[in-house]
Amino acid sequence: MGIVLGTNQYGKAEVRLVHVDRSTPRHVIKDLNVTSQLFGDFTATHTTGANDAVIATDTQKNTVYALARTGGVGAIEEFALRMARNFVDRYDQVTGARQEIEEYGWGRIETSDGGPHDHAFVRSGTETRTVVVTKRGAAETVISGLTDLVVLKSTGSEFWGFPDVEYTSLVETTDRILATAVSSRWRHVGTDVDWDTSFAAVRQTMLDFFAGTHSYSMQQTLYAMGQGVLEAHPEIAEIRFSMPNKHHFLVDLSAWGLENPNEVWYAADRPYGLIEAQVTRDDVPADDAAWAGIAGFC
Amino acid sequence: MGIVLGTNQYGKAEVRLVHVDRSTPRHVIKDLNVTSQLFGDFTATHTTGANDAVIATDTQKNTVYALARTGGVGAIEEFALRMARNFVDRYDQVTGARQEIEEYGWGRIETSDGGPHDHAFVRSGTETRTVVVTKRGAAETVISGLTDLVVLKSTGSEFWGFPDVEYTSLVETTDRILATAVSSRWRHVGTDVDWDTSFAAVRQTMLDFFAGTHSYSMQQTLYAMGQGVLEAHPEIAEIRFSMPNKHHFLVDLSAWGLENPNEVWYAADRPYGLIEAQVTRDDVPADDAAWAGIAGFC
Amino acid sequence: MGIVLGTNQYGKAEVRLVHVDRSTPRHVIKDLNVTSQLFGDFTATHTTGANDAVIATDTQKNTVYALARTGGVGAIEEFALRMARNFVDRYDQVTGARQEIEEYGWGRIETSDGGPHDHAFVRSGTETRTVVVTKRGAAETVISGLTDLVVLKSTGSEFWGFPDVEYTSLVETTDRILATAVSSRWRHVGTDVDWDTSFAAVRQTMLDFFAGTHSYSMQQTLYAMGQGVLEAHPEIAEIRFSMPNKHHFLVDLSAWGLENPNEVWYAADRPYGLIEAQVTRDDVPADDAAWAGIAGFC
Amino acid sequence: MGIVLGTNQYGKAEVRLVHVDRSTPRHVIKDLNVTSQLFGDFTATHTTGANDAVIATDTQKNTVYALARTGGVGAIEEFALRMARNFVDRYDQVTGARQEIEEYGWGRIETSDGGPHDHAFVRSGTETRTVVVTKRGAAETVISGLTDLVVLKSTGSEFWGFPDVEYTSLVETTDRILATAVSSRWRHVGTDVDWDTSFAAVRQTMLDFFAGTHSYSMQQTLYAMGQGVLEAHPEIAEIRFSMPNKHHFLVDLSAWGLENPNEVWYAADRPYGLIEAQVTRDDVPADDAAWAGIAGFC
Repeated sequence: MGIVLGTNQYGKAEVRLVHVDRSTPRHVIKDLNVTSQLFGDFTATHTTGANDAVIATDTQKNTVYALARTGGVGAIEEFALRMARNFVDRYDQVTGARQEIEEYGWGRIETSDGGPHDHAFVRSGTETRTVVVTKRGAAETVISGLTDLVVLKSTGSEFWGFPDVEYTSLVETTDRILATAVSSRWRHVGTDVDWDTSFAAVRQTMLDFFAGTHSYSMQQTLYAMGQGVLEAHPEIAEIRFSMPNKHHFLVDLSAWGLENPNEVWYAADRPYGLIEAQVTRDDVPADDAAWAGIAGFC
Repeated sequence: MGIVLGTNQYGKAEVRLVHVDRSTPRHVIKDLNVTSQLFGDFTATHTTGANDAVIATDTQKNTVYALARTGGVGAIEEFALRMARNFVDRYDQVTGARQEIEEYGWGRIETSDGGPHDHAFVRSGTETRTVVVTKRGAAETVISGLTDLVVLKSTGSEFWGFPDVEYTSLVETTDRILATAVSSRWRHVGTDVDWDTSFAAVRQTMLDFFAGTHSYSMQQTLYAMGQGVLEAHPEIAEIRFSMPNKHHFLVDLSAWGLENPNEVWYAADRPYGLIEAQVTRDDVPADDAAWAGIAGFC
Repeated sequence: MGIVLGTNQYGKAEVRLVHVDRSTPRHVIKDLNVTSQLFGDFTATHTTGANDAVIATDTQKNTVYALARTGGVGAIEEFALRMARNFVDRYDQVTGARQEIEEYGWGRIETSDGGPHDHAFVRSGTETRTVVVTKRGAAETVISGLTDLVVLKSTGSEFWGFPDVEYTSLVETTDRILATAVSSRWRHVGTDVDWDTSFAAVRQTMLDFFAGTHSYSMQQTLYAMGQGVLEAHPEIAEIRFSMPNKHHFLVDLSAWGLENPNEVWYAADRPYGLIEAQVTRDDVPADDAAWAGIAGFC
Repeated sequence: MGIVLGTNQYGKAEVRLVHVDRSTPRHVIKDLNVTSQLFGDFTATHTTGANDAVIATDTQKNTVYALARTGGVGAIEEFALRMARNFVDRYDQVTGARQEIEEYGWGRIETSDGGPHDHAFVRSGTETRTVVVTKRGAAETVISGLTDLVVLKSTGSEFWGFPDVEYTSLVETTDRILATAVSSRWRHVGTDVDWDTSFAAVRQTMLDFFAGTHSYSMQQTLYAMGQGVLEAHPEIAEIRFSMPNKHHFLVDLSAWGLENPNEVWYAADRPYGLIEAQVTRDDVPADDAAWAGIAGFC
């Protein structure tokens, strides 16, 4: 038997970039966390420590900042594509690249006397917009996404009808709190997309179906959200979800003669349910390599 | 010399309570993290393990849920006061109580076809509203607050004129990014306050002065915020801030012939500046005991 | 085009189990975090909310505790296999299972007068031992691992010879600090392994090669560790690493006339290098499905 | 009424310093997180933004590194004292300083063939050693400490005899798991101490009394630890503890005919008990100002 180097990639992770568009007095900011990784012929550095082929991770970091300066940032999907193309097109030994970006949301501060401020901002929301772009030679895959979109329904959720098997003690319910932190990623058919418009619409569709689905299981809610997205967005090939079931347990106050008609709940940390699924079109080819290394999307 | 028990307190920390007001179809939710602690004559359990006086921490937890059920929640200041009064008034050995609550913000999901939803919610913002109520006998102190209000100005901030002493290498600037995560707590003169209205106004005042102050130092911005709050809110005796200076460093791209006119920044994690100060009225008595054990407010 | 449910799995995540073996006065504790997930015919719950097939996640949680009681815990690989076999063998609709366990390390408290204590323990180390068992019908794959094994060499590490391309500014070095938090997972050829002995030996081999390799790149150190493990452990088919290059930058004190002969360093948080690679035997079949959803192992 | 600036301090937080003593081939490393803060006459920067008096936080950071270079690091108490004296003695406007340091533990890698390695290290333990030095003019206070010393007893802990009052439902027990993450800080009488020897002995005393005390309450264990420390260490004036009661709940398996004789436990996250107390000598003056801003030590 022989021992060989398998798949490998390397780069600079979590390059924190804040870009300020000052082209008008009304500044626009983008707050990003960029991870650049390269594939290619990097066997030598692994086996002998010879670094002739290695585009230094420090250089990858510098490239993030230089490309932000020379071309601006725009949608994170565009920026990740520019990063990937820069590396793959420029260096023979680089046969592919994986560029991952997280974007944090900011809104303008609304001042008492002046409305939205031109250059003062406040972080908005807990969620993060994400993208993973993979480029292998000419083939480019864009997987957009979001994490930590935390949502809750205070009614309109049931869970019953599950089998009573060994070690089952759960009681059926026709009215529970349903809460989750949506993590979702969706793969686009191509790269000719109005990314910001598409993202906003997908996010809204998720909220619509989370709110609008009378739920008999978290799986049902998840699937409705995915189906809703694919039906409205022909530019998307498939969507994946990882959704914790953030349990809220009704507090039993009967020992003290108190009813609790679904008003007082204990929000538990762990354990939690974990529901993961893919919703996909049946006429698009799979692209498993693009999903490699992404946590929590079975 | 003798060895003696000094100040002590005990209780249940981080009781996660979600309360759903279902009195109308338009549900209202409150999402709280409650920490209950008691003071009093608890020497015996420390020195001998005799627990005759000890109101079990489990009982304190149950009380959180029972009081939420019997009287609702309301403003966290009110709920913390009710908790404190319950313990101090009911048990002879309990001479005081410290009730700390964190509240997480939620907004209604705006659906595409129906506007704000009656019972579907989405977490809003990164910030947390806080309160610490301390009751010692009849004396009650309410310290309201917020944490993780993350704000940024992309211009309107300078820093220069500091002395050039040993180990100084910092370059003066007349245009930098100013960013912080505001943590603030403010002590009220009394307990007869419209808590929710007061909180919203204080928060808005902070945003107004953060945005509106042309800043020559983080200290100046901090003081302006504090002064603004005290001038507008006679119900507040003093306010304290702990504000990290979240450094954004301009990226030097000159090696590659690129100017960087304050557009491309590196957002650093550590180290960070840390600015802490109290702003206070000169005619109200101090209440140091109410601030004991609160981190990061010198 | 049609929209269909793709791969899916569900279960209970992060079931915290502490098992105390009290069979002798010298207690033995195991501290685990168990995530149980099932695959199979669960289309109905996704598309209609009918839960007839759904083994409740609460039942999966109960099973963790019941199996710990009926058979003890033992090595986490064994316990995960027992979990997987229980579900797959017992329920027709369950065609597969994925059982993931993290184990936290504890040592005995060494008392001044009595040596290692029989029933008093202290947490040891920052690292976590891991396992992911995947069972699909009769096929079982065991991937053992560890995370957060934080190691550092204060010399014996160089980095030079990389190409000077666009946006390169990094200076070559022949003496730097090399530091990382090793995350590694390795897939076994079969399931007939003395798991605890194998784990301890793999961990020691990693430490030996991290310490013993004069390093010209993090990649070289990584590969040496992987090669060392595979050479010594025929029971292992392949091993994967995700190793951040935790940068330590030499502080430039020359402005104040101070040399710094590699003594005073700034430990940076972000960005960091990220080096990921697989080392594998060339005569064992791949098993990509077993690695799906595991973060950070390209 | 007037509005005035109250207590204030500012500085650079979390300066990450790794010092390598290379004076022999057997390197010695220190891994620190340093927070430097100054007090004094800094009113102008608050009220007008005039920075004439402000020793820049960047300068404070440089000083950390420069002092590490010129005098080495040694015990963190010594290093913090050197930092404080440097600032207070050198600058008229600086009337005081607060220097806080966290130290992370490292051990040598034990290689298979060579024993402890000269320059390869592995992080040890979860705990952090701490110090807060406060200097006001000539007065210096040293508060040493540790955090996250996680300990557990699998037997030898009882809890009963507490009153059965309103909302009490807890059941008495004569055998439970007792677990905590010890956070403790202790104030020294003076500054003429062999810091490393004292720290090691205090830590060992804590472990001895945690392990050796048959416990009827967490308070009793806490007090025994504090009393043990003060009895053995005349150099210490007082000691404070913040100890979460990390609950482990016995899993009820009776529904399936299974006994559970204290073997299978659920380790809960939240809520947790929180026990805080001071143990002090009755013949030393208090020094409340030195404790201001330290979280969680009532």
